[in-house]
Amino acid sequence: MSNVDSTKVAVVGASGYSGAELIRILLSHELAELVCVTSRAESGRKLSEVFPRFRAVERADALEFIDPTIDLIIGSGAEVIFLALPHGVAAEYAGPLVDSGLKVIDLSADFRISDPEIYADFYGEAHPDPDRLPNAVYGLPEIRPKEIAESKLVASPGCYPTSIILPLIPILKEDLIDDSSIQVVSMSGTSGAGKKADTALLFAECNESIRAYSVPKHRHLSEIEQELSIAADNNVTISFTPVLVPVTTGICSIIYASSKNGARNEEVKEALENTYSAAPFVRLLGEDTPPDTKNVIHTNFIDISWSYDQRSDRFVFMSVEDNLIKGASGQAIQSFNLMCGIDQSTGLV
Amino acid sequence: MSNVDSTKVAVVGASGYSGAELIRILLSHELAELVCVTSRAESGRKLSEVFPRFRAVERADALEFIDPTIDLIIGSGAEVIFLALPHGVAAEYAGPLVDSGLKVIDLSADFRISDPEIYADFYGEAHPDPDRLPNAVYGLPEIRPKEIAESKLVASPGCYPTSIILPLIPILKEDLIDDSSIQVVSMSGTSGAGKKADTALLFAECNESIRAYSVPKHRHLSEIEQELSIAADNNVTISFTPVLVPVTTGICSIIYASSKNGARNEEVKEALENTYSAAPFVRLLGEDTPPDTKNVIHTNFIDISWSYDQRSDRFVFMSVEDNLIKGASGQAIQSFNLMCGIDQSTGLV
Amino acid sequence: MSNVDSTKVAVVGASGYSGAELIRILLSHELAELVCVTSRAESGRKLSEVFPRFRAVERADALEFIDPTIDLIIGSGAEVIFLALPHGVAAEYAGPLVDSGLKVIDLSADFRISDPEIYADFYGEAHPDPDRLPNAVYGLPEIRPKEIAESKLVASPGCYPTSIILPLIPILKEDLIDDSSIQVVSMSGTSGAGKKADTALLFAECNESIRAYSVPKHRHLSEIEQELSIAADNNVTISFTPVLVPVTTGICSIIYASSKNGARNEEVKEALENTYSAAPFVRLLGEDTPPDTKNVIHTNFIDISWSYDQRSDRFVFMSVEDNLIKGASGQAIQSFNLMCGIDQSTGLV
Amino acid sequence: MSNVDSTKVAVVGASGYSGAELIRILLSHELAELVCVTSRAESGRKLSEVFPRFRAVERADALEFIDPTIDLIIGSGAEVIFLALPHGVAAEYAGPLVDSGLKVIDLSADFRISDPEIYADFYGEAHPDPDRLPNAVYGLPEIRPKEIAESKLVASPGCYPTSIILPLIPILKEDLIDDSSIQVVSMSGTSGAGKKADTALLFAECNESIRAYSVPKHRHLSEIEQELSIAADNNVTISFTPVLVPVTTGICSIIYASSKNGARNEEVKEALENTYSAAPFVRLLGEDTPPDTKNVIHTNFIDISWSYDQRSDRFVFMSVEDNLIKGASGQAIQSFNLMCGIDQSTGLV
Repeated sequence: MSNVDSTKVAVVGASGYSGAELIRILLSHELAELVCVTSRAESGRKLSEVFPRFRAVERADALEFIDPTIDLIIGSGAEVIFLALPHGVAAEYAGPLVDSGLKVIDLSADFRISDPEIYADFYGEAHPDPDRLPNAVYGLPEIRPKEIAESKLVASPGCYPTSIILPLIPILKEDLIDDSSIQVVSMSGTSGAGKKADTALLFAECNESIRAYSVPKHRHLSEIEQELSIAADNNVTISFTPVLVPVTTGICSIIYASSKNGARNEEVKEALENTYSAAPFVRLLGEDTPPDTKNVIHTNFIDISWSYDQRSDRFVFMSVEDNLIKGASGQAIQSFNLMCGIDQSTGLV
Repeated sequence: MSNVDSTKVAVVGASGYSGAELIRILLSHELAELVCVTSRAESGRKLSEVFPRFRAVERADALEFIDPTIDLIIGSGAEVIFLALPHGVAAEYAGPLVDSGLKVIDLSADFRISDPEIYADFYGEAHPDPDRLPNAVYGLPEIRPKEIAESKLVASPGCYPTSIILPLIPILKEDLIDDSSIQVVSMSGTSGAGKKADTALLFAECNESIRAYSVPKHRHLSEIEQELSIAADNNVTISFTPVLVPVTTGICSIIYASSKNGARNEEVKEALENTYSAAPFVRLLGEDTPPDTKNVIHTNFIDISWSYDQRSDRFVFMSVEDNLIKGASGQAIQSFNLMCGIDQSTGLV
Repeated sequence: MSNVDSTKVAVVGASGYSGAELIRILLSHELAELVCVTSRAESGRKLSEVFPRFRAVERADALEFIDPTIDLIIGSGAEVIFLALPHGVAAEYAGPLVDSGLKVIDLSADFRISDPEIYADFYGEAHPDPDRLPNAVYGLPEIRPKEIAESKLVASPGCYPTSIILPLIPILKEDLIDDSSIQVVSMSGTSGAGKKADTALLFAECNESIRAYSVPKHRHLSEIEQELSIAADNNVTISFTPVLVPVTTGICSIIYASSKNGARNEEVKEALENTYSAAPFVRLLGEDTPPDTKNVIHTNFIDISWSYDQRSDRFVFMSVEDNLIKGASGQAIQSFNLMCGIDQSTGLV
Repeated sequence: MSNVDSTKVAVVGASGYSGAELIRILLSHELAELVCVTSRAESGRKLSEVFPRFRAVERADALEFIDPTIDLIIGSGAEVIFLALPHGVAAEYAGPLVDSGLKVIDLSADFRISDPEIYADFYGEAHPDPDRLPNAVYGLPEIRPKEIAESKLVASPGCYPTSIILPLIPILKEDLIDDSSIQVVSMSGTSGAGKKADTALLFAECNESIRAYSVPKHRHLSEIEQELSIAADNNVTISFTPVLVPVTTGICSIIYASSKNGARNEEVKEALENTYSAAPFVRLLGEDTPPDTKNVIHTNFIDISWSYDQRSDRFVFMSVEDNLIKGASGQAIQSFNLMCGIDQSTGLV
């Protein structure tokens, strides 16, 4: 690939956990040049000062955080902009940047929901930029590589959705489960809640603690059901319970669904293999082989397994991923690579 | 209570995690006198030497572990015997001890399943003492206090089953859910797997790890379904996935079930309150109030909450408990208290 | 003790970690009646609502937090007031309350340093109430039981100091170590930093992290050196490095000191046993028997051991305690018991 | 470097934690070709089956574990052999392999101690191959790059020693501290104890636990003092206390030493900078800037800082590293790179 030029990139809102992982990957990405990192709180400080783990890493000792203004971002020369901002804030940047001719990969929820009414229902406020929604692509690289490659605004999926959607899409497309029977429990590490000064996230509160939250209607349901409905070609409503467990990173989703059309483990295996045989970051562990987050953290892999239980005629699908990588920054880099026309896995292994 | 005499007790197989918690409770139980602790591996060593946390605790510096022979146990003068032994081994002790006129509280699975064929199906071998099964009581103190009080052989329930059965019994009795729709994910701390020299349980393997196991047919299903079937007056089959998470103690169960007969949060609340209003260790947190294992570990409480989701017409029931206390030793002490005719919560708060 | 009346108590600043542990102990203390808990932030909320782990515990469902005003505290009828407040704030309460005839046990640093100039040096501001310092007792129950029993203002020691002072006092009194050679590394759980909304204390920041802090001059040095100097009858200066490790509670101190006067393990053992033979919460593990915080957390014990190394002619003293109990609330309860004329260990085992 | 050929390598004893990290690095090392992995227990199984985190990583799905016989290892065509074996066992392989003309990098203690009598004193048995000791190089890449490059048998240093020796060598060489005053407390994650089926290393035993061990004479003292003595040109005896804390990986060493010749922070800084200015993996954080293991785990960096305390005229040196990488496998790869004549940091960043 020596004849491919590097692409200049910016990370806006780079001081949180997803931002830091984006930076980590971009600093060693052979075809990306990190030219701009923004953070209102850290403006003027060196990247390696804010993140001491990047000390002695090339560029991190040179690059300084700047204020997150549209002009400064454009002025940095960046061609692709990653937005690692809270929902609602991201939309304020995406529009002007796209209108300036730049490409945007948004890690927030702002452009994930194509129907602004569903957005309003789940996020409690009107969508800030509904006219732009038709131009945004929900960026699952395994499912929509071409759309991503041609897009100027990618809405990169959330961590819970990725862990639930990827296992189910091939199954729903092949009509192997009853799409009204999907019930999910997802366990997540605390980094998923962000780097917030919230006493509920203190070590002394999270350690030796297992706690569900946001029942019964977590915001991520909206994008999960949107994507499952597309795959099923039907309106899909699921049950979803997120649980906070004491790990720093990692998500494990346990998904129940009733078998349909006589489907057993073999049909599931075939459907998953057909869809993901060429997907570099989807690992199919096989039936009755529960996955372990330990094997995927610090990587961009998602591991998927399944079990058919004849006693109940149900399947349990299980998936694990690093919530900050495959569930956020790594997935965004996959989209970046597709948009640049380079190998999807560049910089990720 | 000064006119009630202490009861002499023994703990057989006292060197594991449940045994240690039993000992901890019994050492400060005002109406129990610990006269005998057995462990083949620790025979001859003082209790406080094997468990340094009991140093300077009265009796623990005096009592020595002895070999687990029937004669020595009987000779100790103990009137009630707690068996904290692996399944299969416990039955070898229970019979002779009961036949000698002693009362036995068995923390293993050996006498939990009333149908020996189901035992054989789930445990992979013939039941070692099927004739005694009709005389054993599945010892849920909140559900069968009278039967426990009169029993000579109590099969104390397992940790997963307790967390699932207690929330569901009142709901099934009132016919508020479809009993074919029950699907459970339970997260457990590593002490639930016992104090075994198994590399899969090392800190370096469990830390930063979330992993399901024993899918799709965990042994505990047999006792869970037995008790749910009694409550429903129907054969109940459920789905159950246990997940190991990095906490030392604590279980959280997330239970989905479809609403029936138009049941909503109010009917659930009423059913639970009617059953547990006088139960000292069941705390009903109310609807949409997810529990946290942090609030129950090191106690005998089980915290229960629930949420009705009108989008799917399903309930999610949530429960948390300390797997070693309410899920094992504390529950056994409740039975002990009932068998002694003293207040159920003696020694537990 | 049926002829001893309960003492009415208040906890001021009860919403932090030490406050919560004080409340936990006081709720089951048979000779204390908790009549008042204050917290500006939680005013008007029930105790069991703020701390769900106390639900169904008697009094916790009835007692409500009130605003921390002197008048309300006095009006509650409390006879002994525990102050679980930040340093600087505690002194604003201690004076008026003592002047009103109440007894005060202050868990902050405000009255620990008898010399106001040293206070100013370490805390960076003038002492707020220097005239009262001569009347305050540095409340180590093992060392000054009589002074505590007669005091109206007890300055209860900090967590690091307790773990360092208790092992060394007998050794310095017997002149068994060179008092200029003391060098300490103390590891602490994160609850020691308090329940603060500080991103540095988030689970995702503390997990898989070992980090020293406050080098080379931690504030606790001032009280440590004060007490060691009294024991040595000489001005003692030590080196001290605190290290944050990922546990919720627990402190382990490793203390190096050079042998003096030919002292070996036996002399150390004798000195420690002579001082602590009747101390209910000091456990001497013996030589070459390193302690484990796991054996003392959730208890009021401090475990102490020691090793003489002939290669270097140095001792290493090791101690472990629960930083919130023996290092804070439990120790304060020992003082309370002494002030009430009841057994020192009431409510603590 | 396209004109440099890959070197064929083998990892003997590859199923433990250091072995797995070696494999991880070697699988993506552009100038190493992993041709042989051995493990008696895992013989015949694929690399990616034993270590599921390597699934879908090139070569890991193809390579199978073989039995660890000298003939099979030689027959694999490997040119450089990494020994990740217990001490005592490694020496049985090192001799025959070196005699066959292969280069060996031994991660065990077998060839670290140049004096066989000291080995016998600390390891409790006669050295298995004393004649070969003069030919072995104690492989600190920052200190002896040339000797390593020319060696056929590198004894790669242990994790504790690396964290203590690297900060102190420049200081001792410049005579900035009293070499009789060195006192160390090192905290380590549990992976340092290896992947052993030992109940003391279970999650439920290590979590919420801080425990010192091997006091007062840990085996690693022998190699630490050997290297410090060389630097000081004097016989150096130190005090050393290792402490197990609940992290998977990471070591933090806190090192006290008395200032000499009027040395202050500036002289220390100069000495460290002079030695390590070109060392790619040593990061000098500066004075009064305590390091955090979180910033070095999963990397080959060692972070070093220092503080002069004028109150005691002592320094405290602090270092952190990943015990499995800079403290084991990463350091061994540095030596490998030097032996191959390629850039020291190849494959490590």
